Amino acid sequence: MLNVGIIGCAGHYGLALDSADEFETCNIAAVAAPNDGTDDTSLKIVAGKRNIPFYSDWREMLEKERPDIVEVDNRYDRHAAVAAECLKKGYGVYCEKPLATTLEDLETLKSVWQASGQPLGGMFNLRWSGWFLGVKRAIEAGEIGEIRLIHGQKSYKFGTRPEFFRHRDQYGGLIPWVGIHALDWCLALGGKCLSVSALQSTRGNHGYGETEMSAVIQMELENQVFATVSADYFRPEGGARHDDDRIRVTGTRGMIEVMDGTAWLENDRPRRAISLPEPGDAFGEFVKAIDAGTAYGFAIDALESTRIALLARKAGDLRRTLRTD
Amino acid sequence: MLNVGIIGCAGHYGLALDSADEFETCNIAAVAAPNDGTDDTSLKIVAGKRNIPFYSDWREMLEKERPDIVEVDNRYDRHAAVAAECLKKGYGVYCEKPLATTLEDLETLKSVWQASGQPLGGMFNLRWSGWFLGVKRAIEAGEIGEIRLIHGQKSYKFGTRPEFFRHRDQYGGLIPWVGIHALDWCLALGGKCLSVSALQSTRGNHGYGETEMSAVIQMELENQVFATVSADYFRPEGGARHDDDRIRVTGTRGMIEVMDGTAWLENDRPRRAISLPEPGDAFGEFVKAIDAGTAYGFAIDALESTRIALLARKAGDLRRTLRTD
Repeated sequence: MLNVGIIGCAGHYGLALDSADEFETCNIAAVAAPNDGTDDTSLKIVAGKRNIPFYSDWREMLEKERPDIVEVDNRYDRHAAVAAECLKKGYGVYCEKPLATTLEDLETLKSVWQASGQPLGGMFNLRWSGWFLGVKRAIEAGEIGEIRLIHGQKSYKFGTRPEFFRHRDQYGGLIPWVGIHALDWCLALGGKCLSVSALQSTRGNHGYGETEMSAVIQMELENQVFATVSADYFRPEGGARHDDDRIRVTGTRGMIEVMDGTAWLENDRPRRAISLPEPGDAFGEFVKAIDAGTAYGFAIDALESTRIALLARKAGDLRRTLRTD
Repeated sequence: MLNVGIIGCAGHYGLALDSADEFETCNIAAVAAPNDGTDDTSLKIVAGKRNIPFYSDWREMLEKERPDIVEVDNRYDRHAAVAAECLKKGYGVYCEKPLATTLEDLETLKSVWQASGQPLGGMFNLRWSGWFLGVKRAIEAGEIGEIRLIHGQKSYKFGTRPEFFRHRDQYGGLIPWVGIHALDWCLALGGKCLSVSALQSTRGNHGYGETEMSAVIQMELENQVFATVSADYFRPEGGARHDDDRIRVTGTRGMIEVMDGTAWLENDRPRRAISLPEPGDAFGEFVKAIDAGTAYGFAIDALESTRIALLARKAGDLRRTLRTD
């Protein structure tokens, strides 16, 4: 069974823990502080509960524990540097998205990954949600014909955000952090992105520095499939759910959409809810792929969704449409 | 009571008829063929049923009948020329959207209108739907705070379309014909448009010439309000309703959205359907405004929504973001 070492807990580090506990796909060997100013309290609790070592220096963790996979979940602008160092040292990496917060860092990470021969995965966990798997299955079964339009929505409560969210150079922005999920669904379903336009705004952020609260993305995918995405932090604090994830896919013979976890299909038969598969195990699927020698696609997809998200952010800053091919 | 003459029946000429019958706002005096190759059968039926004259030459109708308002509903590329001629001759005009299918024609129409001193309105009838009025009322009451994001959807069945839809230079395109409604909602709620990106495709059009089947629009409105729109002709022919009009408006303290004619509001109180006002009388509101001397805004709005739609189409053709201010 593969040993996992965790660096940082600024995002979805729980994916490896859940996979270990629910699916026994791996062994959590140790946890380490990311030494980047982000809060590491949760990792100390994890170490205590599991009776595994907590390292205050993640490099020491690597040397002492020699994990098979390092789960990288540090401050977002440091994802790329730490992931690259782990890969260089011969460790597989499962990294929080975005894999980098600048295109330069992303290019460096990609080169290091290619040279390393190590597996690299990104925390695009929503690809393994029951509803996304259900949508994919229905589309692959031909229920809506050929895809023509995709609209994805990410709407979150703002809640309490870490201090580093105030600084875009540390946080990355709303599109790379939140919008990227919906963007990733679009690429997963619709194919390669050819051009991107986007907009983002800090308006309504309660004085929280550079934190963007709203964003939209428009993408031309291959075969003239068009995708739009919206992302916001405006869900009311008292709302029934933290997130309001949605996707709508329009095809040549019908449409399928997800709202509130239910997938609705309408084609030659009337609109109806469809049955969904069990949610997958995002981290476990990466582990399985490593075992099977098929993890290559995980890296390609994670790098590409990060690249398009960063180009979208740039398009928004420049108020221009950018070619991405 | 104002007398109305109708030229052509290629779109929503029924708006004046409905207004006359249901609200007695006007008198339908005569109908006339547009002489542009579009089918005028429906107008002959109207003339027969109402026992009013049918003219095979619309200029003759103007001279003989001297109507107070001409409802212009001819082939879409001819809207601007016929509307301009009517205005020049001293008639008020209620014109199908888009008011023009080229930016040049639109500029000419605008100049003629300004010089004419006559009222000009556009068939943006959905602004008077109960659900749109309800959304507007809720927003004006502060239910969602300050608007940040708007997403509009127009999804139609393709059904049977006139021959001239095969030719974009006669039809205008999916954005000026269908997307324009959702674009108009965005401008009505969100304010002035500063820049636009868009995409459009003829894929999946069953060999129907240049008819576009799918389109998306992204707009930056003033105050960093962002809007996205999708439009398509992919609703299944057997679907319960011809159209699937939707709008979602996200504000700083909540969101409101319309699906299937019901408006759902979520803010500090849980998501719930809100009561909607009675639908308005689109044509009658124009008549009322003429009587009150306040019709100026109808022309400004119709010209501007047409302008942004034509710039969106151009942005889609060029794959570029265009400034619109």
